[in-house]
Amino acid sequence: MRIDGLQFANWSTTVFGQMREGGLDAVHVTVAYHGGFRETVLGLEAWNRRFADPSNRIVKGLTADDVDRARRSGCTAIVLGLQNPSPIEDDLGLVEILHTLGIRFMQLTYNNQSLLAGGCQEVMDGGITRMGRQVIREMNRVGMVVDMSHSGERSTLEAVDLSTRPIAITHANPDSWAPARRNKSDDVIRAVIGGGGMLGFSLYPHHLRGGSACTLGEFCEMIARTAEVHGTRHLGIGSDLCQDQPDSVVRWMRNGRWCRETDGADSTAKPRFPAMPTWFRDNRDFRTIETGLRDIGLSGEEVAGIMGENWYRFFQQSFSPVPS
Amino acid sequence: MRIDGLQFANWSTTVFGQMREGGLDAVHVTVAYHGGFRETVLGLEAWNRRFADPSNRIVKGLTADDVDRARRSGCTAIVLGLQNPSPIEDDLGLVEILHTLGIRFMQLTYNNQSLLAGGCQEVMDGGITRMGRQVIREMNRVGMVVDMSHSGERSTLEAVDLSTRPIAITHANPDSWAPARRNKSDDVIRAVIGGGGMLGFSLYPHHLRGGSACTLGEFCEMIARTAEVHGTRHLGIGSDLCQDQPDSVVRWMRNGRWCRETDGADSTAKPRFPAMPTWFRDNRDFRTIETGLRDIGLSGEEVAGIMGENWYRFFQQSFSPVPS
Repeated sequence: MRIDGLQFANWSTTVFGQMREGGLDAVHVTVAYHGGFRETVLGLEAWNRRFADPSNRIVKGLTADDVDRARRSGCTAIVLGLQNPSPIEDDLGLVEILHTLGIRFMQLTYNNQSLLAGGCQEVMDGGITRMGRQVIREMNRVGMVVDMSHSGERSTLEAVDLSTRPIAITHANPDSWAPARRNKSDDVIRAVIGGGGMLGFSLYPHHLRGGSACTLGEFCEMIARTAEVHGTRHLGIGSDLCQDQPDSVVRWMRNGRWCRETDGADSTAKPRFPAMPTWFRDNRDFRTIETGLRDIGLSGEEVAGIMGENWYRFFQQSFSPVPS
Repeated sequence: MRIDGLQFANWSTTVFGQMREGGLDAVHVTVAYHGGFRETVLGLEAWNRRFADPSNRIVKGLTADDVDRARRSGCTAIVLGLQNPSPIEDDLGLVEILHTLGIRFMQLTYNNQSLLAGGCQEVMDGGITRMGRQVIREMNRVGMVVDMSHSGERSTLEAVDLSTRPIAITHANPDSWAPARRNKSDDVIRAVIGGGGMLGFSLYPHHLRGGSACTLGEFCEMIARTAEVHGTRHLGIGSDLCQDQPDSVVRWMRNGRWCRETDGADSTAKPRFPAMPTWFRDNRDFRTIETGLRDIGLSGEEVAGIMGENWYRFFQQSFSPVPS
């Protein structure tokens, strides 16, 4: 089983076909980075059109069972998520509405401070807000995963404490390996995994030691070292693959509509998508990572967990409402 | 089994309790008369809160199976619908989004001309529009019932022809019995039923012969006469019960925000809710109608069909997507 914990490609039948070539049974995709509820629904409508086209060989992934069904029918289950809480606006009731529409992950912030929490690119992180506490409780109730990939350290640690269900960092690496505001401290990784949550290792070059020049061996070595400290059962891949996107998209991701040019924070000084490592072009290369993890000395069972079974188990426990 | 084809009460635990007293297994309720998509979602959020309160003893009715489940657990299944297509705005994709959120009926017009069709209170009815044809096709695809209760005659006849699945007039009576722009001609009733669709008899006094003074015998006689011409298997009740609503609500229903006072059409000259007939106060009195139908000479099987089984069968065939 192979599952990717995050992608935002310029979606096409070609990209979906490469998911099949790469043996992906499920991919968590981002529906919204910016914008309010109505715009997010436009994004969901676009996904409905993609699901309706049988040549895409994708199905809507609402539960872990959908991953099994996709697998049996030679399709990829697409799990929908949000990298920003802007789609719920200031309205708690939209959490359940978006869950009903299929959203299974939501980040409490996207780099900047939000109504809910502190962002990883802000100078200060004041922790989880009053509304943030309500939203975490509601996400726990309906079965939507709290994703802290783009949040600040304090907010992430508080989210682990406040959430009654395991949370996720869908796409980031240890900052002890590659220092970056988007990578995570050992404290954060320990807390998230200690709470039963997941860490998805990112292949986005700004999160890699050496950037685009990072080798497969170095990447797999980093995973093996993380596994030594934290075990393997809560580790997965979250490639952050942004395939076939023009550079205007990375500027839009960072600036949204809240900033006209750049405010100079962190990687805003690098206004292009970086080249992917040569050994991970796109969805076709997941088997290369699998081989790399075996070559570094991880067991077959450990590799199977990291490549998909750990995400699958997490999906099983995370996507359904708490029984009332 | 008892099913009501339309209500818009001032919802409360009291009203839901009366549904249980009256033995209602399912009720189709109106979520929106006016307003766009976002406001309709606010209405759906309010229903989520009502469903979450166990003292209401209601469940969301998405399929006929939910009616069975509700029945077994001593609850009422609430089937959600729209009396206006304004919630889909000018966006075909919102039909599937609203179906996913639970909407199972949508009127193509509410009295006035819409983007889709001609309304029953307009001087002219130009029939189903270009967008209307697309929306009917999409409603057929996803499993949302075309409801023509408040539409013009020409649009209704065209909708029967265009729709590949049976349509409904959820709440109206024959205009040969009680002349009113909201009641329906024999041609319309014949066409709707001929296409496998349903007619729900209304208890709203403006749709009754003699208004609030209409007797139980006269109402049941009207049903029996309709059954003689059209058979009983496509007849049901659509009470149009607007319980506990202040008169401001009937003015809002008619005028929405498109009209400040009244434009003088039809019943806009009667700016209050009429008194209900003494024999049908509210949900507790469905058994009175059942008795009345037996007393008029209909068989037990015919009465069971009209009181709920016909709607149930219609739900079974209408609420799921066409297999692809």
